[in-house]
Amino acid sequence: MDAPQRVTCPEVPDRPGASWTNAWRLGHEVVMSGMTGHPTTQQAAAQGQPLGAYEQTLVVLRKLEALVRAAGGHKHNIVKTVVYVTDIADKDAVGRARHDFFEGTYPSSTLVAVSALVFPELTVEIDAWARLDVDLRAAASLQSEA
Amino acid sequence: MDAPQRVTCPEVPDRPGASWTNAWRLGHEVVMSGMTGHPTTQQAAAQGQPLGAYEQTLVVLRKLEALVRAAGGHKHNIVKTVVYVTDIADKDAVGRARHDFFEGTYPSSTLVAVSALVFPELTVEIDAWARLDVDLRAAASLQSEA
Amino acid sequence: MDAPQRVTCPEVPDRPGASWTNAWRLGHEVVMSGMTGHPTTQQAAAQGQPLGAYEQTLVVLRKLEALVRAAGGHKHNIVKTVVYVTDIADKDAVGRARHDFFEGTYPSSTLVAVSALVFPELTVEIDAWARLDVDLRAAASLQSEA
Repeated sequence: MDAPQRVTCPEVPDRPGASWTNAWRLGHEVVMSGMTGHPTTQQAAAQGQPLGAYEQTLVVLRKLEALVRAAGGHKHNIVKTVVYVTDIADKDAVGRARHDFFEGTYPSSTLVAVSALVFPELTVEIDAWARLDVDLRAAASLQSEA
Repeated sequence: MDAPQRVTCPEVPDRPGASWTNAWRLGHEVVMSGMTGHPTTQQAAAQGQPLGAYEQTLVVLRKLEALVRAAGGHKHNIVKTVVYVTDIADKDAVGRARHDFFEGTYPSSTLVAVSALVFPELTVEIDAWARLDVDLRAAASLQSEA
Repeated sequence: MDAPQRVTCPEVPDRPGASWTNAWRLGHEVVMSGMTGHPTTQQAAAQGQPLGAYEQTLVVLRKLEALVRAAGGHKHNIVKTVVYVTDIADKDAVGRARHDFFEGTYPSSTLVAVSALVFPELTVEIDAWARLDVDLRAAASLQSEA
């Protein structure tokens, strides 16, 4: 394996004193930390206009995309996501944002409601797995005969 | 890498308008979405006989197995699961179902209680990772000398 | 692929009747179950001195390290963690423990608060992914030009 590469990009600044790395490129894999809408969500909340789940999801997906691009790929390299929401009622808003973002080519995904995320204004966090050697748009279909 | 293959099977119908893909085959890997007992759980609840955690776990594990089989493998290709329950008291029922399903050859697993799953009658969701080039039944043992 | 190897070590005893495997070595990958501070946490609680999140996190990280070592590697092969806490206020204590443990070379990480872990005295559970062919200390940096 080539040496691991620490992935950085201006859209996802490293937080001073962080005890995690935003993303690693390990060969064909991009390993990422869970992303939230912070600090956009914090600024919006401070202005009395907190972001809803649809907006937060888009902010998060764009950060994940920025990391994968910085690693040398694009958003259709994202093969799986785990979505953590603080209110299960937001699942449809998350789905709408995923539709608008992934445009018909969807990674596998899991969605559960958790009791809290790292800042109180956050309602969505997304964990993602990407592979630079996989473009989901090039998919063939594999169907079982039941 | 070969082109990614979208995995479909009658046991896990694609939901219209879904913003996720149930499963992808990516080379030797099978990447799946978190599975729940829906719609079996919904039908049972509508008939006043909601499924308990043991039954839900079996329904879920069989759906995961169906996806891995559709991808060309079998249940002992499942190398890891993350189990989300809505009531931590269900952990033993989940364990019994895992015993009955995996029959002595167990993937790694994590279990946590979350505040909600996507439908109110759901008490168990399972996220799984499978590798078609790994059959856990063929395992050797690797032991550290402390 | 070589046969999968079941990883065992004295620091993480197999629980009798467990429906999971603590860790598998699959080629270069180490696939692990979520680790908690049990039984250290239980003993401490029984003595009226329950472990805080900082201490629990260290106990957990050392168990993960023991598994990766038993698989033939070391702690800097851990490339990603998902941290489940029962109280989001513990996130800083978790971060301090990660600093002390990883000493400047950090895996990617996700942290969410869940409603319960498998024993009441547990406040931290960590799920980890490791690759024996990756040493994060050997990292180069990959930076996007925005």
